[in-house]
Amino acid sequence: MAIEHGSTARYTPSVSSRRVAAATKLEPTRARLDVEERRRQLVALGHELFSTRTYDEVSIDELARAAGISKGLLYHYFPTKRDFYIATVREAAKQLLDRTDTPRHMDLGDRLDAGIAAWLDYVSEHGPAFISLLRSGIGADVEVARIVDDTREAFLRRLLEEAPIEKPSPIVRVALRGWVGLVESAAVEWLGSQRAVKREVLHKFLVETFLGIIQMAAKEG
Amino acid sequence: MAIEHGSTARYTPSVSSRRVAAATKLEPTRARLDVEERRRQLVALGHELFSTRTYDEVSIDELARAAGISKGLLYHYFPTKRDFYIATVREAAKQLLDRTDTPRHMDLGDRLDAGIAAWLDYVSEHGPAFISLLRSGIGADVEVARIVDDTREAFLRRLLEEAPIEKPSPIVRVALRGWVGLVESAAVEWLGSQRAVKREVLHKFLVETFLGIIQMAAKEG
Repeated sequence: MAIEHGSTARYTPSVSSRRVAAATKLEPTRARLDVEERRRQLVALGHELFSTRTYDEVSIDELARAAGISKGLLYHYFPTKRDFYIATVREAAKQLLDRTDTPRHMDLGDRLDAGIAAWLDYVSEHGPAFISLLRSGIGADVEVARIVDDTREAFLRRLLEEAPIEKPSPIVRVALRGWVGLVESAAVEWLGSQRAVKREVLHKFLVETFLGIIQMAAKEG
Repeated sequence: MAIEHGSTARYTPSVSSRRVAAATKLEPTRARLDVEERRRQLVALGHELFSTRTYDEVSIDELARAAGISKGLLYHYFPTKRDFYIATVREAAKQLLDRTDTPRHMDLGDRLDAGIAAWLDYVSEHGPAFISLLRSGIGADVEVARIVDDTREAFLRRLLEEAPIEKPSPIVRVALRGWVGLVESAAVEWLGSQRAVKREVLHKFLVETFLGIIQMAAKEG
């Protein structure tokens, strides 16, 4: 995870190549790609670091040290620690949505099962970050809150597409949004209890509540 | 709701009586009570104002004007706008818990019914504040987030006491915490949809999910 100090040289070409590109007006595309690639590497590293520790626990000095670059260069890519953090939250949301996406050709029950398994994998791996995001920590930030909300909305859209219901009525939408809230809250409680409940018990519970809630809502709608 | 400007005189005695008390060393208790009473009045007013509008929408000037006091005096009671806001969130949490408390002698089904009705009444009355609290807005603040979390925990304890289960296993705790998340999320979706779902349909859905979830969890535990 931590990139060693000695590797600094490996990570500076983007800046020098940008200088060359600016001077000679050659390869501006390559230079831009370098910057984007470097940002991606830094975001991946930040995502790792913020996975097991909260925003306040990770200092900008440590982030720069782990990336093997100077603080100044880190600020070149991300003007503030918060900007950097927001980029890692965006990356986390993207990974969560990607990993829980299931092949359309699968049977609905299997998709639900696979989706819940992938979701539990992800929150198990990123427990502290997940709890701090949903619980308070940096939930502080309006932009972070928007990413969390957008992710919920993306899950909701996916569930509405997948739900075994012809034309979802408003109560089905409310019910599915409620289920997303149930999954999040149950997971926070589960992680906070040092996983006092066996994972397969929680998994089964989430599958059953999904089916039960859809049924109840369909009956009402 | 808005206290008129002309009523300023009615609200200043506490300060002058404090001065008198300080000078004469008389009635310190009365003076303290006056300060507390004034704080309570201000919090009640803030709770009203923040009910229909978000933190950012209400300025400190407006708060002072509505209370019929000077900004300086408002700052005397609450050093910052955030302090004032936090006091109103605490008041909101207290009211929510008080109003949803149901008599112990009632039958469990009736208590669940009455509790959900009172909860829906409260969030209906304080919609914008509720959405902004749970969604992002000021969720920003660590202290506010703690109040929100403590309130959830209080609901969870109450549900654990009331749940028709002998000895709640860990999965029952996870399930009930999940249900609290479901209720919150479903309500945010409901309010955000301009109440596209009839209130009684949502009410019934929440009652049914509670009973269903408890049953599923009891079976697992």
